[in-house]
Amino acid sequence: MPADRLSTTFAALADPTRRAILARLALGETSVSELAEPFDISLPAISRHLKVLEHAGLIARGREAQWRPCRIEPDALKGVDDWLEDYRRLWIERLDRLGDYLRTLQSQGKKQEKKRARKK
Amino acid sequence: MPADRLSTTFAALADPTRRAILARLALGETSVSELAEPFDISLPAISRHLKVLEHAGLIARGREAQWRPCRIEPDALKGVDDWLEDYRRLWIERLDRLGDYLRTLQSQGKKQEKKRARKK
Repeated sequence: MPADRLSTTFAALADPTRRAILARLALGETSVSELAEPFDISLPAISRHLKVLEHAGLIARGREAQWRPCRIEPDALKGVDDWLEDYRRLWIERLDRLGDYLRTLQSQGKKQEKKRARKK
Repeated sequence: MPADRLSTTFAALADPTRRAILARLALGETSVSELAEPFDISLPAISRHLKVLEHAGLIARGREAQWRPCRIEPDALKGVDDWLEDYRRLWIERLDRLGDYLRTLQSQGKKQEKKRARKK
């Protein structure tokens, strides 16, 4: 996936309505009017959001003239997932460090308990 | 992570220079001038990108007046990873379907080979 493609994907995802549309389409394909129903915005506004998502390759639309169902296209999201791969180790390492720190605290606590027990 | 936070993160990631800055910072913290070196853009332009990344919580900057090192903050990226979780099954299912299809083709091929062998 070239850099510009990824920028287009991220820009398309930078909107809560577009992410809500994707969440709906993840459940199955649907018509534009059905898709628009839960949103408090006009059909033309929904159509504009769909165009952005379609341009980013996040959704595809059927060819039927009357009923052009929208469906999610997971490949662009997989591109985001692949890009994230290089960064995943960063928070995993952070969690590991936190785990080490907690274990250190725990073993220090135990040592102090033993000392106190010996003094009694 | 509230919806607006995620929109800010995605908008910040929708730029190849900002993603290149993150890739550099994933290797370790660094000063702004060192960070700017490989890029063919001005220091003020780099500073603007850093502000966008900082506002999105993707990087943090040190408090030292003279040397304000930048470092990556993985939590915002983990937010993206968490968001992706609901969609991951989509391309996994697609790969599974492709695997099933390939196995069907394979077994059909074997059946036809057997038929041919019997006819001989």
